[in-house]
Amino acid sequence: MDKVNIRQVLVSVTEHWSQTIIGEANGQVFKVAKGIGETKWHKHDDQDELFILYKGHLTIQLRDRNIELYEDDMFIVPKGVEHCPKAEHEVEFLIVGLNVTSNAHGGKPNL
Amino acid sequence: MDKVNIRQVLVSVTEHWSQTIIGEANGQVFKVAKGIGETKWHKHDDQDELFILYKGHLTIQLRDRNIELYEDDMFIVPKGVEHCPKAEHEVEFLIVGLNVTSNAHGGKPNL
Repeated sequence: MDKVNIRQVLVSVTEHWSQTIIGEANGQVFKVAKGIGETKWHKHDDQDELFILYKGHLTIQLRDRNIELYEDDMFIVPKGVEHCPKAEHEVEFLIVGLNVTSNAHGGKPNL
Repeated sequence: MDKVNIRQVLVSVTEHWSQTIIGEANGQVFKVAKGIGETKWHKHDDQDELFILYKGHLTIQLRDRNIELYEDDMFIVPKGVEHCPKAEHEVEFLIVGLNVTSNAHGGKPNL
């Protein structure tokens, strides 16, 4: 494979809460996405989901607390844990998991 | 777990080519490290190794070409592929794989 510049790929992303695959290693899929507003509450029973923020302020709402992520913050939502990402302004992030989760089951909102 | 700020953790890293674990998800270990100079030529028969640059310019020497990485560049060294990272000035990076590889088998130089 060739190298990929994460911020350059993010420039080309136009749809919110839609993941673009940038690489795969050891069965993990590395994806980038933009978001604004919030997804639906959801959980992944098959995988942990790891976020790294590249731009903006993303709140990962959990049932018992909120995680406030800013640039270069990393957070792992463990498998089976309900969550709902929310952003007042557009955010850009890297997301790592077993497959693409930006679908109805993965909480993608009706845009 | 709590959130982790990748750049803040990197500030506390003092030894070159020594990985600090910052998280684990789906059996993958997320680590940060600093480097300067070069490691020894090595390969990992059990795992792909993914790099994301946070600071500086890192050359991943492969046997048939060099990969030049700058900030926010991502590159995956496939399992079994010989490589030798090299940096003229200090670099900071995230590295993802199955375990800590900053040891003699993983090419760590004699400092």
